[in-house]
Amino acid sequence: MTPPAPTGDLPDIVARIDAELRPLLGRGRVADYIPALACVPIERFGIAVSTLDGACVTAGDADQPFSIQSLSKVLTLTLALETRGDDLWQRVGKEPSGDPFNSLTQLEFERGIPRNPLINAGAIVVADCLVSDRTDACATVLAFARRLAGPRVAFDEEVAASERATGFRNAALANLMKGFGNLENPVEVALDAYFHQCSLTMSCRELATAFHFLAGDGDAVVSGARARRINALMLTCGTYDRAGEFAYEVGLPAKSGVGGGIVAVVPGRGTIAVWSPGLGPSGNSALGIEALKRFVAATGWSVF
Amino acid sequence: MTPPAPTGDLPDIVARIDAELRPLLGRGRVADYIPALACVPIERFGIAVSTLDGACVTAGDADQPFSIQSLSKVLTLTLALETRGDDLWQRVGKEPSGDPFNSLTQLEFERGIPRNPLINAGAIVVADCLVSDRTDACATVLAFARRLAGPRVAFDEEVAASERATGFRNAALANLMKGFGNLENPVEVALDAYFHQCSLTMSCRELATAFHFLAGDGDAVVSGARARRINALMLTCGTYDRAGEFAYEVGLPAKSGVGGGIVAVVPGRGTIAVWSPGLGPSGNSALGIEALKRFVAATGWSVF
Amino acid sequence: MTPPAPTGDLPDIVARIDAELRPLLGRGRVADYIPALACVPIERFGIAVSTLDGACVTAGDADQPFSIQSLSKVLTLTLALETRGDDLWQRVGKEPSGDPFNSLTQLEFERGIPRNPLINAGAIVVADCLVSDRTDACATVLAFARRLAGPRVAFDEEVAASERATGFRNAALANLMKGFGNLENPVEVALDAYFHQCSLTMSCRELATAFHFLAGDGDAVVSGARARRINALMLTCGTYDRAGEFAYEVGLPAKSGVGGGIVAVVPGRGTIAVWSPGLGPSGNSALGIEALKRFVAATGWSVF
Amino acid sequence: MTPPAPTGDLPDIVARIDAELRPLLGRGRVADYIPALACVPIERFGIAVSTLDGACVTAGDADQPFSIQSLSKVLTLTLALETRGDDLWQRVGKEPSGDPFNSLTQLEFERGIPRNPLINAGAIVVADCLVSDRTDACATVLAFARRLAGPRVAFDEEVAASERATGFRNAALANLMKGFGNLENPVEVALDAYFHQCSLTMSCRELATAFHFLAGDGDAVVSGARARRINALMLTCGTYDRAGEFAYEVGLPAKSGVGGGIVAVVPGRGTIAVWSPGLGPSGNSALGIEALKRFVAATGWSVF
Repeated sequence: MTPPAPTGDLPDIVARIDAELRPLLGRGRVADYIPALACVPIERFGIAVSTLDGACVTAGDADQPFSIQSLSKVLTLTLALETRGDDLWQRVGKEPSGDPFNSLTQLEFERGIPRNPLINAGAIVVADCLVSDRTDACATVLAFARRLAGPRVAFDEEVAASERATGFRNAALANLMKGFGNLENPVEVALDAYFHQCSLTMSCRELATAFHFLAGDGDAVVSGARARRINALMLTCGTYDRAGEFAYEVGLPAKSGVGGGIVAVVPGRGTIAVWSPGLGPSGNSALGIEALKRFVAATGWSVF
Repeated sequence: MTPPAPTGDLPDIVARIDAELRPLLGRGRVADYIPALACVPIERFGIAVSTLDGACVTAGDADQPFSIQSLSKVLTLTLALETRGDDLWQRVGKEPSGDPFNSLTQLEFERGIPRNPLINAGAIVVADCLVSDRTDACATVLAFARRLAGPRVAFDEEVAASERATGFRNAALANLMKGFGNLENPVEVALDAYFHQCSLTMSCRELATAFHFLAGDGDAVVSGARARRINALMLTCGTYDRAGEFAYEVGLPAKSGVGGGIVAVVPGRGTIAVWSPGLGPSGNSALGIEALKRFVAATGWSVF
Repeated sequence: MTPPAPTGDLPDIVARIDAELRPLLGRGRVADYIPALACVPIERFGIAVSTLDGACVTAGDADQPFSIQSLSKVLTLTLALETRGDDLWQRVGKEPSGDPFNSLTQLEFERGIPRNPLINAGAIVVADCLVSDRTDACATVLAFARRLAGPRVAFDEEVAASERATGFRNAALANLMKGFGNLENPVEVALDAYFHQCSLTMSCRELATAFHFLAGDGDAVVSGARARRINALMLTCGTYDRAGEFAYEVGLPAKSGVGGGIVAVVPGRGTIAVWSPGLGPSGNSALGIEALKRFVAATGWSVF
Repeated sequence: MTPPAPTGDLPDIVARIDAELRPLLGRGRVADYIPALACVPIERFGIAVSTLDGACVTAGDADQPFSIQSLSKVLTLTLALETRGDDLWQRVGKEPSGDPFNSLTQLEFERGIPRNPLINAGAIVVADCLVSDRTDACATVLAFARRLAGPRVAFDEEVAASERATGFRNAALANLMKGFGNLENPVEVALDAYFHQCSLTMSCRELATAFHFLAGDGDAVVSGARARRINALMLTCGTYDRAGEFAYEVGLPAKSGVGGGIVAVVPGRGTIAVWSPGLGPSGNSALGIEALKRFVAATGWSVF
């Protein structure tokens, strides 16, 4: 096998990917089920590669904040593991869902235990834990995100309100779990925490920095063993019902969001954050996946 | 993070795991749906760790041949990719199944396209490709296994006949796929190739050697890119509906079989083969999983 | 075939059934998922047979009002067909569900269109129509029930409140349908109307009288053609996922409720209402079904 | 309600329906998954109404024999109840399927117990009973059909062979049931009996005559109680996943087949057989259903 690319090659690689993808801007469809997201211009692309030696190589709209949506699920999971430890797995599984991110069928069949913490139902359970365990769940999530990525991170209250007003399917998931006894707090309270965490806005540069703790630089945040386990969950469950394909083509732990962001972790090396709002059929950023495929082809960075 | 254990520590680690697991012999249940397998004594445990530098550390029943069953799916997939390349993915998916290894529901819902090549339905499609593409599918599989692992590898005709006589569920899968137009050959012909490949007998030592080509030593067998992709499939799909849990706890690409064998790949380092016939609730070797968990805890070998 | 029993035999038949079932009082389990229902004493049994010639034969607790729950679905369906006619069938199907009365799986798979108007999801759609079409949906339902059965019919506000406080699964159904665009009004408004209709209290005597309009005496309420169609829906869908068994054993259109009531219609002859709070495994009154089986065996009253 | 039409009106009604439907000949699609059926000309329509007083009114191609396919399921069920009685219901249910007639999903979920004896899986179980219980299952079925309908009834060996050669889905169903232990005989033997019964050829006139025993004239064949129960099964399960709609619109127990035949039973009055090979989306004869709807609208014959 050819050895992975050295860090010094990154600026050229990142610039080339940015140049190659510019002509493809506009691919996919902006998520329209959250009205406040539907008006984000589709012709955006940003990439940030942050290495453990402290360098950060960027291109395009890498400093433009966007709605991180489901990327927040990794942050809240990390917080919930802090207070619950392995008890968390009584309430949520660790298996890929193989179904769309917001399926009720599986949740009903499995009696209110979501398949994993990176799909909506699982993240609502995680949010419910934070509501129970922390004085102020929303403030805790925001503080954690700012600790990891800097003070610019904020909630977008308009997006949170828009999700609350239209999030019927998430309300269905939460009510179903409540019916099965798998929510500790009132449905509205758990959902409010969940909708807020989804509304966090961050840039590619901030995200790449924030996820460093999973690449091997995180002893202050989580132990190495826990980081490896969170990475395992991202690899098997982080990109909805396309996780197998993503592992096959990209080969890195990653989490995507319907805001168009994807963050990938390269254990021992660093992180890659990409953003482009046009989504492919599985709800993952179309150009984001394309960028990551080209990046790993160019660098040979892969866990396999 | 602590660095991974050096190769020199392996003999002690392997000996300790063998000693720790001896008292647990007898856990789980021997697969009883294939009559010829049901009479294998449950109190067996073997382990072989083979590193890229050519060393092989073993303990217990590491030289005892056993029925490799689904481990053969990785070998036949490798052969089918040789002749079909990416066209194979028109006929079988790459996503984790999240369902038992022989579920018809998913196969019907997805119109005869199996979720991945490492569950039974997918492996029957792969066998069907080999029947079409090779002069003698069974001879090709046997020759490939012998090339990788040595001349002792053989079919166990009694096991193959036993599976043919009782494999009604596999016959249901094959007929359903035939009905959807996803088998090229007669149902019985594809099944015969499939039942034969499952009946291959190999020891832990032979399996660890055979899977070397996926650990980075395989340019003569497959390209590095293809090896990485097969590893990705093993990580997301190799241990039935426990793949997420396995990735979380062990963190290595692996394939299990109902004969009680599991082979794990450590990219850049080597392979680990374990065997113990008692199966846990998901159809994976109970002691085999326990051994792998202890091995990665001791060595820090993980892709994450 | 033997001819059906004449009306004159009914007092003896009803008295005998009452006597035979007394020793079985206590069978089944009182519905406990609605707290206000859980405290109804299980040792109750009532039966009322009302014939088109105006006679009403009763036994046991036939004048004891109880929570009619899902029996109300027939009344609200009748009202919705009045304003919507066949357009109603754009929003709800006519097929048996084959699944428990409150399944989300089917509703998700069929994109928010409930299987039929006699399961919870379908009745919530019907309630939503009444909210849209009538000045005051709850008042309309109450007035209709009183018109059919007399002035004693009332809502039990405690039961309605209890269902609202604990009806998470109904809230999940309603939110899922809202997400699919199959509710015209806010989720809470449709659910409030639904929970109220379920809380109606009526006695066996009142129910038998009320359902007369479906037995052939209803030209003032619905046309004969519509009555036949509502009967068809009751036969195929009126007893949850036991409708086939019920048709096989009883052979009459009927609707059951988790309050323990069942009303059966004998076209051209009359109606039978039974009540006993202990439910069997499918959510139908255990003694109620037993009483109906004995009644049809004794009378030969069957649509087949 | 208006009283049902007297028998004397039938010739006019039948002639009018025939005249009205002639212009619609060609609607629907001939079943093409059985090659030997695919070449039946679509522009055929026949109807026969047979009353308990011995009269038979026909129109169109009422004397043309056709492949009765699933209509045979009622005959074999009747035969199996003769030897098995209620024990039959240990191996097959009585509930509507709500799924296509050949679904594997439901069968797997319900562990090899088919929903009812009028879908393919259930009829294969019934055929398996006949193979066990009778000296020659095929001869028994043929003799029974001839006893009911006359000596012209025959197997079409070409159709039976065509189904055997292409019936992969039925083979999948049978293998799945065998795997669950719900077939007593070898898969091929049960399937052979099943494929033969489906290949029976009969005309509308013969079918209307044959089904008389279910209309109240059958004491020599089955008891009145059993006839009523078979009628109940036909009403809830006889027209695949359109049974609810059929009950709603036609309101009679009936069984349809993919050869384009439908037989309906009017308890206490007689039987109606229709035939037209073009099938609608649910696998029922398009013109056949249309004819039955017009017939019941004209006659008021309905069980409700």
